[in-house]
Amino acid sequence: MSHKNSFSFPIRVYIEDTDAGGIVYHVNHIKYMERVRTEWLRSEGIDHYLAGDRGTDPQVAQNLPNSSFSFVVHQLQITYHQPAVMDNLLIVSIEAVSCGAASFVIKQHIERDDIVDGIMTRVSIASAEVKLACLNADLKPRRLPSNIRDLIQTALSD
Amino acid sequence: MSHKNSFSFPIRVYIEDTDAGGIVYHVNHIKYMERVRTEWLRSEGIDHYLAGDRGTDPQVAQNLPNSSFSFVVHQLQITYHQPAVMDNLLIVSIEAVSCGAASFVIKQHIERDDIVDGIMTRVSIASAEVKLACLNADLKPRRLPSNIRDLIQTALSD
Amino acid sequence: MSHKNSFSFPIRVYIEDTDAGGIVYHVNHIKYMERVRTEWLRSEGIDHYLAGDRGTDPQVAQNLPNSSFSFVVHQLQITYHQPAVMDNLLIVSIEAVSCGAASFVIKQHIERDDIVDGIMTRVSIASAEVKLACLNADLKPRRLPSNIRDLIQTALSD
Amino acid sequence: MSHKNSFSFPIRVYIEDTDAGGIVYHVNHIKYMERVRTEWLRSEGIDHYLAGDRGTDPQVAQNLPNSSFSFVVHQLQITYHQPAVMDNLLIVSIEAVSCGAASFVIKQHIERDDIVDGIMTRVSIASAEVKLACLNADLKPRRLPSNIRDLIQTALSD
Repeated sequence: MSHKNSFSFPIRVYIEDTDAGGIVYHVNHIKYMERVRTEWLRSEGIDHYLAGDRGTDPQVAQNLPNSSFSFVVHQLQITYHQPAVMDNLLIVSIEAVSCGAASFVIKQHIERDDIVDGIMTRVSIASAEVKLACLNADLKPRRLPSNIRDLIQTALSD
Repeated sequence: MSHKNSFSFPIRVYIEDTDAGGIVYHVNHIKYMERVRTEWLRSEGIDHYLAGDRGTDPQVAQNLPNSSFSFVVHQLQITYHQPAVMDNLLIVSIEAVSCGAASFVIKQHIERDDIVDGIMTRVSIASAEVKLACLNADLKPRRLPSNIRDLIQTALSD
Repeated sequence: MSHKNSFSFPIRVYIEDTDAGGIVYHVNHIKYMERVRTEWLRSEGIDHYLAGDRGTDPQVAQNLPNSSFSFVVHQLQITYHQPAVMDNLLIVSIEAVSCGAASFVIKQHIERDDIVDGIMTRVSIASAEVKLACLNADLKPRRLPSNIRDLIQTALSD
Repeated sequence: MSHKNSFSFPIRVYIEDTDAGGIVYHVNHIKYMERVRTEWLRSEGIDHYLAGDRGTDPQVAQNLPNSSFSFVVHQLQITYHQPAVMDNLLIVSIEAVSCGAASFVIKQHIERDDIVDGIMTRVSIASAEVKLACLNADLKPRRLPSNIRDLIQTALSD
C-alpha cells in the first residue's frame, strides 16, 4: 500500500497498550494516531497545544507549550482490520483529504510489516478519517493559522 | 433528549481522564463507552471477555473471566459536541441499531446535566455508532451467542 | 483486615485496565488510588483541582474546577500482593498517617472479597504509602488549606 | 548527573500523557519507566512477556511474544522532583542495584535537558527504585533465566 502526500512515523507497542485479550486495546490505536499528528506538525516546526495560564514560575513556564490555537477532534471514523500485539513496530501515516476555513480532514493508517509466505508484506491494522477543528485560547472555533493551511494545501496538491 | 430501548450508566471524570487542554482527552470518551457496554451486558448477567490460558493456579483462575466468545470493535464513528471536564458526572447510554449473524451495531451517547438559564438541561457531549464483531477463542468470527442475540432483538423491538 | 480512620470506595476493573498478561496493569492500581483520594475529598465537600485559565467561554468555565490549590504526589511507595483481573470489584481505602504544614501522608489499600475455602475473605491486592504536597496556582508549595488540615487531623485522632 | 552501569532511552511526552494541571500525570512516569525496561531487555535481545494461549490462528500467533517467564513489579518507590510537560523529550535510565534468585532491583531516573542560566543542564524529573519478580507461565515465582541474571550481574560489576 502506498500513500501519496503522506507523513509517517513508527510507534512501538508496549505492554501498557495491550489488554487481557492479548492484543492492543482498540482505543490505543487512536492515541497512536494523535501522537503521529503531533510528530507531523513538529516535523514542520509547528507546536500546536495551548498553554493556558500555568502560573509565573519561570522554571515551569519555560517548559510549557504556548500558542494561540489548538486542535480538537470533531469527528473520527475508524475501521479495525487486524490486531496489533506487544512489541509490534507499527507505521502510522497521515494524508490530507480536505481543508476548510476552521477545520481540516485527514486519513490515517496504521500498518505493520509482516512476513507472509516468506515475503515482507505491509499489512493494514486500522484506518481512520479524522476531522480536526481549530480553536482559539477561549476554546472557540477560529480560522486555521496560515502555516497550517499552507501545509495542508501543499499536501493536497502533491 | 430521550433514547428508546436504551441502557444508561453514570461515569465520573477523574484527573487521569483530562489533558493539558483542561478537558477530557478525546480518546477517553471511547473508553467510557466500552465501560458502559460491559455494564450493559453485566446488567443482563452476561460476562463477555475471554480468559485464554492463564495457567493452573486456582487462586488466579478463580478470578478470571471465562467464556467462549469476546467482542471486538470493528468500526466506530464518533462526533464530539461539547468538552467534558474534571469532576463531571456523565451519563453514557446504549441503544441497539441492528443485529447481524456475527456482529451488531449500537449507538452510544455521552451526556451531562447542566444548568442552562436556570433550567436543568441534558447536554450532548459526544455520540457514536459502534459495530461490534463477535470472535471465538481463536479470534475468528463466530455467530452471536443466542442470549446476546435475544438481548439485542428485544431492544430493537422496544 | 480492618482500617481505623479510613474512607473506602469501590472500583470496578474494566478491560482497559488489564494488559496482555491477563491482569490489571500495575500502573493502574495507582490511578485507582488517586480516584479514591478524589472521592474522599468529594465526600467531605472539597474540590481540589486547579482550573488555570481556561478562557472566557461561560459554558466551558461553568464546568471547570476552580480552586487556589492542588495536590501533587511527591512520594509514593507501593507493594503488590495479588493480581487483580477483569470484572473485579475492588475496595480502595485511605487512612491518614501524618500531617505536615504543606503536605500529608496517607496509606492506601486495594482489597477484594474472595471466597477462600468457602468463606468470604478480604484479600490484599496492593498497599501504598503516598506523600501529597499542596501547591498554589503557581505550582509553588503552600500551606494546607484549613479544611484539609482539619479533615486529616480528625482522621488521625480517630 | 552520571549513572554508572546504566541504559537510557528517550521518551517523548504527548498530550495523552498530560492532565488538566498542565503537567504529565504522575502515573505516566511509571509507564515511561516500564517502556524503558522493555527497551533495555530488547537491546539485549530478550523478549520478556508471556504469550499465554492466544488460539491457533497463525497470523495472530506469529505476532505474539512467547516465552516461559514474565516480570511483574513487586515493589516500587518513586519520588517526583520537577513536573514534565507536553513535548518534553525525557531521558529515562536504568541501573542495576541488586540481584536475587527470583527477583532483582533497579533504579530508574527520568531527566530532561533544560537551559538554566544559559547552560544546558540535566534536570531530575523523577527517580524510582523498582523490585521486579520473575514469574513462570502459571504466574508462580521462578528463578531468573540465566541470560537475565548474567545481564544484571554484568551491570552490577561495571
